Formats: sequence, C-alpha cells, structure tokens
Amino acid sequence: MSTIEETIHQMGRQARAAAYALNQLTSDEKNTILRAMAAAVRGSVAELLEANGKDLEAGRAKGLSAAMLDRLRLDEARVEAMAAGIDQVAELPDPVGQVLDDWQRPNGIRIEQVRVPIGTIGIIYESRPNVTADAAVLCFKTGNATILRGGSEAIHSNRAIAAVLNQAGAPEHAIQLIPFTDRESVAVMAGMDEWLDLIIPRGGKGLIETVVSLARMPVIKHYDGICHLYVDRAADLEMAVALAVDSKTQKPGVCNALETMLVHREVAAEFLPMAAEALRAKGVELRGCGETLRILGDAKPATEEDWDTEYLDLILAIKVVDGEQAAVDHINRHGSHHTETIVTNDEEAAERFLRAVDSACVFHNVSTRFADGGEFGFGAEIGISTDKLHARGPMGLRELTSYQYRARGEGQTKG
Amino acid sequence: MSTIEETIHQMGRQARAAAYALNQLTSDEKNTILRAMAAAVRGSVAELLEANGKDLEAGRAKGLSAAMLDRLRLDEARVEAMAAGIDQVAELPDPVGQVLDDWQRPNGIRIEQVRVPIGTIGIIYESRPNVTADAAVLCFKTGNATILRGGSEAIHSNRAIAAVLNQAGAPEHAIQLIPFTDRESVAVMAGMDEWLDLIIPRGGKGLIETVVSLARMPVIKHYDGICHLYVDRAADLEMAVALAVDSKTQKPGVCNALETMLVHREVAAEFLPMAAEALRAKGVELRGCGETLRILGDAKPATEEDWDTEYLDLILAIKVVDGEQAAVDHINRHGSHHTETIVTNDEEAAERFLRAVDSACVFHNVSTRFADGGEFGFGAEIGISTDKLHARGPMGLRELTSYQYRARGEGQTKG
Repeated sequence: MSTIEETIHQMGRQARAAAYALNQLTSDEKNTILRAMAAAVRGSVAELLEANGKDLEAGRAKGLSAAMLDRLRLDEARVEAMAAGIDQVAELPDPVGQVLDDWQRPNGIRIEQVRVPIGTIGIIYESRPNVTADAAVLCFKTGNATILRGGSEAIHSNRAIAAVLNQAGAPEHAIQLIPFTDRESVAVMAGMDEWLDLIIPRGGKGLIETVVSLARMPVIKHYDGICHLYVDRAADLEMAVALAVDSKTQKPGVCNALETMLVHREVAAEFLPMAAEALRAKGVELRGCGETLRILGDAKPATEEDWDTEYLDLILAIKVVDGEQAAVDHINRHGSHHTETIVTNDEEAAERFLRAVDSACVFHNVSTRFADGGEFGFGAEIGISTDKLHARGPMGLRELTSYQYRARGEGQTKG
Repeated sequence: MSTIEETIHQMGRQARAAAYALNQLTSDEKNTILRAMAAAVRGSVAELLEANGKDLEAGRAKGLSAAMLDRLRLDEARVEAMAAGIDQVAELPDPVGQVLDDWQRPNGIRIEQVRVPIGTIGIIYESRPNVTADAAVLCFKTGNATILRGGSEAIHSNRAIAAVLNQAGAPEHAIQLIPFTDRESVAVMAGMDEWLDLIIPRGGKGLIETVVSLARMPVIKHYDGICHLYVDRAADLEMAVALAVDSKTQKPGVCNALETMLVHREVAAEFLPMAAEALRAKGVELRGCGETLRILGDAKPATEEDWDTEYLDLILAIKVVDGEQAAVDHINRHGSHHTETIVTNDEEAAERFLRAVDSACVFHNVSTRFADGGEFGFGAEIGISTDKLHARGPMGLRELTSYQYRARGEGQTKG
C-alpha cells in the first residue's frame, strides 16, 4: 500500500466510526453544531482570506484565467455568504427519523420505514473552495460523515475551511479533507466501497468519467444539461418568446439553461422571426435546421453536432419539427435527461409531452431555469442529478438519506 | 467490436426503444399482457419441459450436484407456479404514475413528483430458470425493458421461457434474453451505461464482485446475510429461545437466516443452556466464544472467522457481550447490514438498538426470517438489497421505479 492509499483508507475507517457517532445526535444537537460552524467561519475571516491568498498567488503564477481566479477567490462578502449558508441549513427541517411508511401485518408485526443517514459520503470536486463548506454542511445536517477531496488550485483554502468547520464540536472525523490532490487519491476513494457508501463528483466531464469508471460504490452524477424548449402549434407565441429568452439568457453558463429550441412546423413562420428578434437583442447566436434557415435567412446552419452540444453560452440551436411526438423523439435521443419544457395551451399535448419525455424535470409553460433545488423550495441543493437511481433532478437534504425498516413484534416466528 | 459486443449493444438500443413504448402503456394494458403471459406459460408446458430436459441432461453429463439439478429442474407444478406468479403480479397495484409529492411555489408553479419506470434493467443471474420469468415480469409490470443474461446451465430453459413470454403482445424487445452465456457478455452489459440504467446481479459472490467492479451504471446487490439475534438482559428468555430456533432453523440456507447470536452477560448462564438444548434438538452445531464455552462446556470454540461467516447451514456462532452497545458494535463491524433482531422487554434498549444498528432491517422481538418482501406485504420481491442507495432491504415493485418532477405554470420566467 502506498502512503496515499494507507492515509485515505485510515480516513475511511475514521469516517465510518464518525458516521455511527453522528447517527446518535439529535436534530437539535446537529443544529447547535451547525450554528457554531457558522460562527467559527465568521470568526476566521482573516485566516481564510490568508489561505485563499496563497491559492490565488499560486493560481496567478500558474497562469489561471481571470474566470478561474474569480471562482477561486474568497473575499469578506463570500466568507459571510458561506457562514449565512450554514445558518440557513441549521434552520431547515431534518429529514432523518422521518417515518416514510408504517403498517401492520396480519400476524401483528408493525413495520416502519424510517429515513436514516446514508453513512459516509465522498465528495470529489474541482476549484471552488465554497464547495468544501456547502457539501460538508449538507452531509453533516443529514448525519453523514464526509471525506472531501478538492482540487489542487484551492488546497490552502480548502484546508483552512475544513479546519474552521472542525472547531465547532462535531464528532471527530465527521468532516475530513484529503490532504492529497493528485489523481491517485481519486482512484483510492473510488475503490474503497467498504468505507464509502456514496461518491458525488462535482466538476467537469473528465472528472466524472474517471469516477464512474473506477467507482465500486454508487455514484450520483450531474452531467450535462442539454435542455430543450418545445414550442407547440397551440403555444401562446408571446409566452414562448419570453420563456425562450429567459431560459436561454437569464444565466447562460448553467446546466438548466436552454440549449435547443424545437418549433412546431405550423407556427414556425410566425414564431421564429419574433423569437429571433428578441433573442438577438440579447446577443444570442442562432443555429438552425434547414427549415429554420429558410424562414430566418440569416441564421447559421446547425450541424448534427449542435443537437448534442451543451453550449453554456449565448448560442441556441433551433429545429422545426412535425409535432410533439417528433419533439419527444428528438429530446429523448439528443437530450441529457435534465430539463425540458413545452409551451402550449393544449393541455392534452402538454400531458403527453410530460409523460413521454425521459428527463428529470419536465415543465409546461415554465422556464427551464426553474429546475433548481432553491426554486423547488428545497432550501438547499447538493446538485442536480442526471441519474435515475436514488436521486433524480434537484437533490436536497432528503436525497442525502437512506432508509431502514424497523419491525416490532411480540415474539412472532415464521415456522 | 466483437460479435458479442455488437449483438448486445444492438439489444441495448432495442431495449431503450422498448422502454419508451412500455412507458406509453396504461396499467390495464400492462395487466392484460401479463395475464396473456401467464396463459402462454400454461399453454407451453410441453415445450418448456422439453427445453428443460436438455438442460438437465447436459447438467447430468457435466456432473452437477443433485442440489444444482434440483434448482435447474422444471416440472408441471413448477411451471404452474410460474404462471400463477405472473397472474399474481398482474393483480398488484401499479406504482407507476403514483404522485409522491405535490406542492405549489409562491410564484404559482405547481410541482409534482411522480413515479416513473427506471427505463432499462439488466438482470444477470445463475442457474434457476424461474428467475427469467420472475424478473422479466416484475420489470414489465413497472414499465421497464429487461435484458436478461442467465447462466449456461439453464440456457435452453431460459430461451424457451423468454420465447413464451414474448408471445403475449408485449412491445417488441421489452423482454430480451442474451443468447451468450460466456463471461464477456457480462462485461459488455456492465459497460453499456448508455443503454442500461441499472444492473441487478442475482447469484454468488463471484458474479456480484465481477459486476460491481465492471459496471458503469448503478448496481443493486444482494450480498451475504450475516444476520444477528441479540438476547438482552431484559429478554423474555423463552421467547428468545423460540426466536433463535426459528431464525436459525426454519430455513437455514437463505439470506435472512440467523448466523450469530449475541447474549447479554447477565443472562448468559441461564439462557445458553436452554437455547443450546432447543437448538441441538434441531441439529444445530454451536460455536462459542470463551464465555459461551465456559457455560456450555461442549460447544466448539469459535474463531475470529466465524463472526464474519454466512454459514447458510445448521451452524450458529454465539458470543457473550456486555450490553446492547457491545452488541451493536459487533453487528456493525461483522454483520452484512442485512437483518438483526433484539429480544428484550426493555423498550428503551430496543429503541437504542434499532436506531444504532446500520442494517436494512432491524427487528424487536421478531424472527429474522420475516425480512422478506412477501412477509412485508409487498406482494412480489425482486431481491433483498444490502445497498443503501435507491433500494435497501426487500425490494418490491416500487423499488423498480424512479421519479420525475413535472411542473406546470403560466409562463413563469426567472429574470
């Protein structure tokens, strides 16, 4: 065993023990510790900014882009936001202990299905140091021990944040940060299914691919968001323009932003010029299918690749389709099963679309930008899962829990 | 690409298309097809027995044990049981379409969380041919397309069963059986996460290990059942004897059978002789810790290995412990997180035990043998998951579903 392997396995054993200790805490005890974590963050602004300064300096020396450096940067306002976020999590209801179902069998045995913590969760992430606090705190609230493995760019910030969180009276090893940032540490984590019940990778496709191919335990991924808006023939076209503009331009760099618009053939000639004007006013580049080009004239031609691309930029692919079934077929084939919306006043077409689309979030007359734990009212979000098992779509606190069956009887035997 | 790879990928594409077709069926349409499947099975007894005869002949030539041959064997009664099982699944409520949660946001958007099929499920199993029908039918009921890969011993039976099920009007490719039984086919299935949303391996530890290490998609495992019974100092000792005998001997070869008994030090001297007499009357070999041997005298000594062993046989390991926390620690360390029971009249000790034990099923004064989908009232069981994500413990129909968020609005935008 290498030193890295030994260290991380030791952290795994410690995380398991911490998970059992965490499982003994009441909601009030956890919330008191969370508030102490927020206070510790507020009391450590100078240390956190100093540690972050080292990362920024190293980042500049490495030639990181301005955008990368901005992601990495902490300032007083961001540290305060981190603390306020922790206080907010303390206020949320605790899903642990919730009885999901209970019933009695004819033999008198009473069975309860109760939410319990998952146990131990590995979080593998890239440059943003605030993930250290966000992920650790959501897992702590739900009684899970975490092993965090952040990117090398933020290592000083991450260490400082983890050290501050650990001043607040949490059970020993409830929150552990891996001191290594090389790739071997990811492989070691992915292999130790005895000590980690779940891995959540947060970052680019390369990182997620690596984790998926190595992991022996469950992984919850959030891959691309290639989101679609389908303008039906029965759409309110003004509403469709507003939804297209909002979905595409309100925040183009995020996973619930619109990437492809599908338009019913019967309304394309009327709708596309209206939409093009509004979208171009916001600086959106349009790439269209043949029919779109015929109507708009000056759009760029879309290639097959465009239908499979998450631009995360002010670019929109547009395709004219023969109806809602063609829209569904296109989405199920080219989409990323994240979020799609239909604009229509035809309730039946809407219901057929919602049922047939194989995506985590399917909307009727709603901007794709509402596919978000905050907008759903979850209070906190650890990510948006594009998986179908365990958690799908926005993940709040309850998605960080498992369940257990508890049965109570009076000596019932089967024989 | 090898022929095996090409064939199986093609089946994957077909399964995905079939899943979309299945998702369009109503519960009534699915149930009508299920009843037609049962009728087709009843009308094909001769073909099924003939195909099974080929497997039995090959099995005898290969020198399979009598127990293996019995697992492999179909007869008229077993074929009828298969058909009756399908009829029973048709009668069960369909979880698909069930609204798990619904709420309205302050902006007027109404959100529903609705159960939907998972999509496509790979089932990899070993010798019992009835798994072909059981698994395919449960997946069909929940709107999932299946790709089945059975063991080589049952290949003729499996082909015949799949062919019969496919005479009943299900969407094309809803149920597909892989025609290969070599190990490459398992690797190919495990790699094609584009086409399979979930793999469920049913079989020995070697098979499960292979699938876990290769799979890129979620896997739901059922590993060992190293189940424990803890006799507390406040136990009704007669009840404890009855529960120990039932848990250990009612069906010793199954995963919810008892393997290790933990006994509180204060009652060990009184309880162990009573228990030993009753267990030995049923032919159980006892292996004890030092304290157990001191009391029982003639038990065999248990080694460290015994605490980690699933005997699946008339052998019981016994350990004297200092209290319920020591019992919990032993279970969480040595158990397989399947099913554990406490025998006590002390309600507080029971509640502490239920909460602290990290297992799918935790029981109070109930035989471990009740950890079973049928006994829970699920009507059908695809297995008992020892995983914590998505499904834990007995898996019925609802564990074969995912969910989707459907939101309806009037043109809400975020900007």
